[in-house]
Amino acid sequence: MPKISKERLEIYRELRRDFKEDEFINLHPIQRGGVLSPEARKAIVEFADGYSTCDWCPPKTARLDMIERPPIAQFMQDLAEFLGMDVARVVTRCREAQFISFTMLGNPGDYVVLDSLAHYSTYTAAELARLRVKEVPHSGYPEFRLNLEAYAEKIEEVKRETGKPPAAVLLTHVDYLYGNLNDAAVVGKICKEYGVPFILNAAYTGGIMDIDGKKLGADIITSSGHKSWAASAPTGILAATSEMGEKLFARSKIVGDWSKRKFGVKEYALLGCTVMGAPLMTLIASFPHVVERVERWPQEVEKARYLVEQLERIEGTRQIGVRPKNHTLIHMESDGFFRASQAHKRRGYFLYEELRRRGIVGVQPGLTKHFKLNTYGLSQEKVERVAQAFLEIAREQNLSVS
Amino acid sequence: MPKISKERLEIYRELRRDFKEDEFINLHPIQRGGVLSPEARKAIVEFADGYSTCDWCPPKTARLDMIERPPIAQFMQDLAEFLGMDVARVVTRCREAQFISFTMLGNPGDYVVLDSLAHYSTYTAAELARLRVKEVPHSGYPEFRLNLEAYAEKIEEVKRETGKPPAAVLLTHVDYLYGNLNDAAVVGKICKEYGVPFILNAAYTGGIMDIDGKKLGADIITSSGHKSWAASAPTGILAATSEMGEKLFARSKIVGDWSKRKFGVKEYALLGCTVMGAPLMTLIASFPHVVERVERWPQEVEKARYLVEQLERIEGTRQIGVRPKNHTLIHMESDGFFRASQAHKRRGYFLYEELRRRGIVGVQPGLTKHFKLNTYGLSQEKVERVAQAFLEIAREQNLSVS
Repeated sequence: MPKISKERLEIYRELRRDFKEDEFINLHPIQRGGVLSPEARKAIVEFADGYSTCDWCPPKTARLDMIERPPIAQFMQDLAEFLGMDVARVVTRCREAQFISFTMLGNPGDYVVLDSLAHYSTYTAAELARLRVKEVPHSGYPEFRLNLEAYAEKIEEVKRETGKPPAAVLLTHVDYLYGNLNDAAVVGKICKEYGVPFILNAAYTGGIMDIDGKKLGADIITSSGHKSWAASAPTGILAATSEMGEKLFARSKIVGDWSKRKFGVKEYALLGCTVMGAPLMTLIASFPHVVERVERWPQEVEKARYLVEQLERIEGTRQIGVRPKNHTLIHMESDGFFRASQAHKRRGYFLYEELRRRGIVGVQPGLTKHFKLNTYGLSQEKVERVAQAFLEIAREQNLSVS
Repeated sequence: MPKISKERLEIYRELRRDFKEDEFINLHPIQRGGVLSPEARKAIVEFADGYSTCDWCPPKTARLDMIERPPIAQFMQDLAEFLGMDVARVVTRCREAQFISFTMLGNPGDYVVLDSLAHYSTYTAAELARLRVKEVPHSGYPEFRLNLEAYAEKIEEVKRETGKPPAAVLLTHVDYLYGNLNDAAVVGKICKEYGVPFILNAAYTGGIMDIDGKKLGADIITSSGHKSWAASAPTGILAATSEMGEKLFARSKIVGDWSKRKFGVKEYALLGCTVMGAPLMTLIASFPHVVERVERWPQEVEKARYLVEQLERIEGTRQIGVRPKNHTLIHMESDGFFRASQAHKRRGYFLYEELRRRGIVGVQPGLTKHFKLNTYGLSQEKVERVAQAFLEIAREQNLSVS
C-alpha cells in the first residue's frame, strides 16, 4: 500500500502554468529576462533528465566546469570574457554567488557595505555568512536615488568601528524596487582607492545590458540566469578577476582523518558541481541570443520610456524612481487606480482582472496604488497594446486621461 | 559589434546529449534514478521559463514553499510525510542540504562524525561550514563494510578531544562507491543515546526505496532529486523533525542598519527561495510515480543480483562491496576485462565501445578493471540484454564464461 493515496496525489497530475507566454503579454517584473529563447526550449528537452550533463564527465578531474561535451568548459571562458572578467562559474542562484563571495572574503563578524535597495537575498546571504551589513542610504521618495559617494564614508565608518576595512562592498547594479540604474564605475573607483573587493550584483543587468566588469572596476560580478539570461531557474553566475577567483574558487583542503581521502580538484565553496543539468544547458543554449540582444538595449529603454509616458497620462499616476527610466523595470504609483479600486466591487483585484481580460498578465493581483512591470523583450506593438489597455481601463473607471 | 563573434558562438547551437534514453540502455551509476517520468517531461516544458513557479507567489509571504498555485506548499507537506519526517524543503542539491545542516547545527571548529565512504560533497559541505570531520572506518577490500557501532566510539572520541559531543552525525545510507546499504536504525539509536542530531544522507535511497525517517531515528534526511526522484538537476531535499526544522529553517533576523529593513519571513539558510522553476516542477510531477515505484524496490534488487550473478560468470570478474547486493548500484572488478584491455588495440576503451555498439552506455569510457553500473528502473528484459552483451564481449576477448 503506497504511503500516500492515489486520490491525494491527484493534484500533482497535469501541472499547468497559469498562462502561456505566447498567449499573453507578460509584464511580470522578474520574469521578462528569463523567458527562454527557442534554442533554450530545445535544450531543456534534450537535457531534461537528471545529471544529463555528466555523460562525458572527465574521470580524473570530475568537475562540471571542465566538461567538454557538451561545451561547458568553453562556455565558462566565454561567459567570463563576455562580462569583462577573467573567470566565471555557473552556480545555483545569484544569491548563492553572493553568499560564496561573502563567506570566502569575510570572517564572521566582518562587515559588508551594501546599498539600501539591495534585494533581500543579499541581506540573507550576508546573514548566512555571519557578516554584518552597513547600508549606503538612498534619497527616499520619490526618486530613491542612491548616494554612491557615500560608499567612501561607509567604508571609513567600518574602519573606525572595527579598525579594518569591510570584507567587501556590494552594489546592486539595478535594484528590484524602482529599477534605478547605478553608475557602478563610481563605486569601483572608491573600492580601488580603499583596496576593498567590489561585488557588482548584476541580477537585473547582466544578460540584458552589456557589462564590462573590468571597466567598471568590479572584482566580482554576480548575476541571475533565470532573471536576465533567458535561462531556466535555478541558475546564477559568479564571475571574477583572476585574483579574486583564487579566493572564491579555492580548492578543497579537507582530509579524512582515518581514510586520508582528499578532494583537491573540487572548489569547495561551490560544493563541487553546481547546476549539473537542464537549467545550465538553457543558459548555454541562450548564450548566442544573449550576446546579440545586449546590443539592442537602447531600444529596450526607449520602449520602457514610452510606456511610462503613456501611463502618466492617467490621472494621479506617475513613475517612481529616477527619471527618465534607464531600465525596463518600472515602478508605477497610481492614486487614480487606487481610488477606483475603493469603489470597485472587485476592489484592488480589478486592475489585474481587467488587464487579464485583455490578454495581459504580470501585474500582481490586488495591487493598484503601487505596481511594478517590466517591458523587456516585448515588441513595440505589444507595448502599445499594453498602453492602450491601461488607458482604456482608466477611462472605464472614469479617470481622466490627458 | 557583439563582443563574441557569431563563428565562435557556433558551438553553442544545436546542443545534443550524447545519447537518448529511449535509444540506448543506460547503466550510468548516477543517472538511473534521475530519468524523468513522462509526467515530469511534460512539466519541464510547461515550466521551462525562468521564475515559472512565481506567477502566484503570495505577496505578503513571498516564499517558494508557500506557493499554492502550482501546489508547492502541499507538496512540501506530502514530501515530509512520505519520508516519515515533519517538515521538508526542496533545496538546490543534496550537498546544499548537507551544508545547511552542518552550518546551522555547528560552529566553526566543531566536529561532524561521518562514514568514511561518504561522497566528496559531504566533506566539502563540512569544509564550507568550517567543521572538522571524524570518520567511521570501513572494513576495506573487498567488502568495504562500515562498522556502524563505531559511531559510538567516534562520538566518545570527539567528546574526549573537545569536551562536547559533535555538532552532528552523518551516515550515507547507500554509498556511491560500492552501493552498500547501511542499517540506519543502528546509527539512529546511538545518536539518540548521545543526544546528537542524526543526518541520514539518502541521496541513493530516498525516491527509490521507502524510507521512514522517524523509524530510523533520523533527525534530518537529505536526498537528491536528480539522483533518485526522477527529477531534473539541480534539486535537493532537506527533511527534518519539527525540532530540527526550527534550527535549519530559522527565519532571518538581520536588520538594515540605516533602512531598518527586515526579512522575517525568509528562511535565511535557504537564502529565501531555492529552486524557483523547472526542476522543482519535475520533482513534483514525478512524485506520484515515485510514491508508487518505491513499492517495487524488492524487484529492483532482484534484477541487480541477477546481473551480478551473470557478470560473475566471466573469468576473473566479481562484485565488490557487501554481498549479496541490497541496492542497484553495482561495483564490478574484472581482472579478465583488464587483461583483455592490455592486449586490445583500443586498450581500456574497448569495453565502452563494445557495449555502445550493442546499444548500451553508462560504463565509464576507459574503465575495465573497476567499473560501476546501475540497473535501477530497467526492465528484466533489458537487464538480460545487458548480461548477454557482457558475456558476448567476454567470449570475443577469449575470456572463459562459466
